Amino acid sequence: MADKIFRVNMTDLSVRVEEVPAAWQGLGGRGLTSTVIAAEVEPTCHPLGAKNKLVFAPGLLSGTLAANSGRLSCGAKSPLTGTIKEANAGGTSAQMLAKLGIKALIIEGMPAGDTWYGLQVSADGVKISAETELIGTGNYQVVQILNARLGEKTGVITIGPAGEMKMTAANISIKDPGSRLRSNGRGGLGAVMGSKKIKFIAIEPTTKMVEIAWPEAFKEANRTFAKALVDNPISQALAQYGTNVLVNIINEAGALPTRNFTSGQFEGHELISGETMHDQIVAREGRPKHNCHPGCVINCSQLYNDQDKKYKTSGFEYESIWAMGADCCVDNLDQIAEADFLMDDLGLDTIETSVAFGVAMEAGVLAFGDGTEMLRMLKDEIGKGTPLGRVLGCGAGSVGRTFGVTRVPVVKNQAIPAYDPRAVKGIGITYATSTQGADHTMGYTIATNILNVGGQLDPLSKEGQVELSRNLQIATAAIDSTGMCLFIAFAALDDAACLPALIDMINARYDIALTADDVTNLGKFILKTERAFNQKAGFTSEDDRLPEFFNDEPIAPHNVVWDIDDATIDSFWNF
Amino acid sequence: MADKIFRVNMTDLSVRVEEVPAAWQGLGGRGLTSTVIAAEVEPTCHPLGAKNKLVFAPGLLSGTLAANSGRLSCGAKSPLTGTIKEANAGGTSAQMLAKLGIKALIIEGMPAGDTWYGLQVSADGVKISAETELIGTGNYQVVQILNARLGEKTGVITIGPAGEMKMTAANISIKDPGSRLRSNGRGGLGAVMGSKKIKFIAIEPTTKMVEIAWPEAFKEANRTFAKALVDNPISQALAQYGTNVLVNIINEAGALPTRNFTSGQFEGHELISGETMHDQIVAREGRPKHNCHPGCVINCSQLYNDQDKKYKTSGFEYESIWAMGADCCVDNLDQIAEADFLMDDLGLDTIETSVAFGVAMEAGVLAFGDGTEMLRMLKDEIGKGTPLGRVLGCGAGSVGRTFGVTRVPVVKNQAIPAYDPRAVKGIGITYATSTQGADHTMGYTIATNILNVGGQLDPLSKEGQVELSRNLQIATAAIDSTGMCLFIAFAALDDAACLPALIDMINARYDIALTADDVTNLGKFILKTERAFNQKAGFTSEDDRLPEFFNDEPIAPHNVVWDIDDATIDSFWNF
Repeated sequence: MADKIFRVNMTDLSVRVEEVPAAWQGLGGRGLTSTVIAAEVEPTCHPLGAKNKLVFAPGLLSGTLAANSGRLSCGAKSPLTGTIKEANAGGTSAQMLAKLGIKALIIEGMPAGDTWYGLQVSADGVKISAETELIGTGNYQVVQILNARLGEKTGVITIGPAGEMKMTAANISIKDPGSRLRSNGRGGLGAVMGSKKIKFIAIEPTTKMVEIAWPEAFKEANRTFAKALVDNPISQALAQYGTNVLVNIINEAGALPTRNFTSGQFEGHELISGETMHDQIVAREGRPKHNCHPGCVINCSQLYNDQDKKYKTSGFEYESIWAMGADCCVDNLDQIAEADFLMDDLGLDTIETSVAFGVAMEAGVLAFGDGTEMLRMLKDEIGKGTPLGRVLGCGAGSVGRTFGVTRVPVVKNQAIPAYDPRAVKGIGITYATSTQGADHTMGYTIATNILNVGGQLDPLSKEGQVELSRNLQIATAAIDSTGMCLFIAFAALDDAACLPALIDMINARYDIALTADDVTNLGKFILKTERAFNQKAGFTSEDDRLPEFFNDEPIAPHNVVWDIDDATIDSFWNF
Repeated sequence: MADKIFRVNMTDLSVRVEEVPAAWQGLGGRGLTSTVIAAEVEPTCHPLGAKNKLVFAPGLLSGTLAANSGRLSCGAKSPLTGTIKEANAGGTSAQMLAKLGIKALIIEGMPAGDTWYGLQVSADGVKISAETELIGTGNYQVVQILNARLGEKTGVITIGPAGEMKMTAANISIKDPGSRLRSNGRGGLGAVMGSKKIKFIAIEPTTKMVEIAWPEAFKEANRTFAKALVDNPISQALAQYGTNVLVNIINEAGALPTRNFTSGQFEGHELISGETMHDQIVAREGRPKHNCHPGCVINCSQLYNDQDKKYKTSGFEYESIWAMGADCCVDNLDQIAEADFLMDDLGLDTIETSVAFGVAMEAGVLAFGDGTEMLRMLKDEIGKGTPLGRVLGCGAGSVGRTFGVTRVPVVKNQAIPAYDPRAVKGIGITYATSTQGADHTMGYTIATNILNVGGQLDPLSKEGQVELSRNLQIATAAIDSTGMCLFIAFAALDDAACLPALIDMINARYDIALTADDVTNLGKFILKTERAFNQKAGFTSEDDRLPEFFNDEPIAPHNVVWDIDDATIDSFWNF
């Protein structure tokens, strides 16, 4: 049976199951969410109004046994950036939706009243029910209660109090195999879900499998693909230390933004590093490696326990630890873990919110390094929706505007993550040109600039950075359409067998004959579709710029500024 | 002696007195501030950073005996809108600066430390002194203390606590002949002055007069001009009831935005009308008519006393009374007067701040109609710079973003004032296309749409509104360059002798031979200069739009929406 589009209208609480239009047939994940948003959402609409839509789409390979194919894309017009937005996350929902034959779940409209709703998705359609019990509760509790209500195997997509309050740093959480949380983190998609008065989306388990046109060819390709992932040295480092392996590496490179982006190195880096974290996890009987979705062979996640050896948080990423750690000068990993847990539970993007704290520290709202006060503010201000909490929960730009701070590390109003663009020029091109505001995952030049994956390119040189970012952004857009985790990119860049095997799997799944060029063209098509939306929304090249302090303030230890000129930045789009 | 440019650099606390460049010779007021900003400020710079400049310029006729020529223009890149900005106000400063031979005072740079400064301007230059006594004090007290310190006749330009805290609704206040306050109200210019750590600018009195090339011709033209002003029926209505004569008129027209722009009529309009105000002023022994600068022959201001017949506020304008009244549903004129006084004293734009309260009421932060709580929040939240106070003090857009409200009446992030564009289409064109965000004074189509000045044009018709707004915006830009109060426009539109007399005065002052066409071309030049700046800052036609709720929500009593299409709006710039 062919996949379908499930369409939910929250204005009249109606549901339609539709055939997939021809133009959307070959698309999945980000390629599909961005195409739907570009086709159906007025670029100038208010992101929290009835005209915005929220689109969930599994990737092209989601639901199959392909290694690492469990990412779920979510798209909308972002209330944080005003641009088109796609965020993807692991968990079990992508595979469950794909097995139900759902190519995309499109949620449109907005109810008039104050009633909150829960959606239950099954093969037959979507049931919309008024919800009261879960309103105001954190994401962890939502998952627990829905497990009890609907069964342990139910899929869950949920927003926390931050999304209910329409804070623009609110994320969307997806239940993972251990009933913990994975986040469609950036761009405030949780506020869009909140604006539509949807607290959760539950997904009925199924024993159905997705159809594979050529099962043997698929299995063969998957074997090659999985081997490439497992054999890759970066994969192995990720399995050992998680993404937090990067704290020491990026600190050494002088690119670890510290004290609201005023230095490139953090004195306390050893205390928050991946190595320290690993030892602590082992000593406290947590799990240093762990998967976020079934079928992952990299296992970069972990279960971090507190001093009493009780579960505290998981998916404890480098960028989150950097943001609460170096950027806010908090060198206590337990405080950072507690903050990570609270943000996951409240449903907040850890990067946006923590960088917002860094700006608030510069404004004097709290002191740099005061993790205790950060935790209090998470609970008592953001959690309770006080005015200060809402300012923080609306992100770094919000704090900067409210308190008159000029050193505000954002592009298109989205917080710049854990790699200083002055010391790693390639990532600066990604931040500036990304269709979705500052986001390292859009074109992760750290791979080549720092990790020497896919070649080598001096992070301090101006040469070649545009080309590097462009190639990676194109490839990323394509990968984000397959349902694959972005961490396959390390193997794809360094192992000649990896990418062909991925393409072979797509071809075997759908009985088609994609080439590598087709995949590149898909990436280009996605970027151009997203940019066209942004241009219609009023964005220009002037928005493809880093904040001026990067040009004016040299950063230690290299004492470098951001010095790539505007014309060079704009040449990114020459493709 | 030829006029000079006084240039103050706050980075190194240096002062330079410069010749006027040839290109700036024929300019004054807004024409000069916008030309300087466009020439010297990077359009993409942070408005609260060292690269922005604050420019004060008297008009071409300021300092002469020309009636109503006492407006002082102030320009910068606006921290509220991100556009170029000019705001002008009465008071004594324009005339004093002109008599000192100062064509413009340009303030640039920014001090590194926490020290605040006061500037003292004399014919010899500018003295920069560290200031402590006045920091944190309200504008009324600043004027009183400077009167004591420097003499009653000293000119004063000052910011209140709001400007010190860099709130983007902060205005700049100018001392008037009664040591009360006149405001360069909109666009957050007070925050720019605060970012440069300048609490006040004092101006030394002088007995010098500006030179007039042809004194007799000047006197003759001024006589004709003043007569045109005095004889005009609108001038006479303004003298009797102040601008607040408009409450009943605009309510009758169904264009009085009420309850955060959800209705066009306010039940309590009689309680806050100009007629009611007039009677109250008379009964309480205030002054119903009063001038804001020497030489004004219209006298639209007033001294409003409280119930104990003590001074409460002056310059009590229709737009302020509407905003606190109809838009926030407060029908108690004494509470509105108290709020007006507090905003003047704190140094806040009454329109921006009050519309922000309206949005906060919609968000449930306080109740519609709760004037008591509004007064408390002005004192205890905004005055003390609490997080909520800063959100409110950063304007309507700030409140909307922080609390997730979608009905936010702003264009380019500046609050829409007291005339609903659904019921008066011409003013909607002005709001949309103005180079400075929503601002009725940029092209006051109410004159023709409602008051039948300069012809008649049905406010509900789509026809001819672009042409009306265009002609008025061009004329306004020129008038704003002369130092003239905008209220000369009523006479200029209806009395054939008025405009030629104004041009004759400029010609007699400078020994030149401007024609009416030259004046029109000056207006066009200013608008195009301002727009070019905005375009370089990243603004596009998509920014020339009203918020979508105006298109979607009909307003009572006419049940009309904003229905002028984008192409028609954009045709504004076909000149």
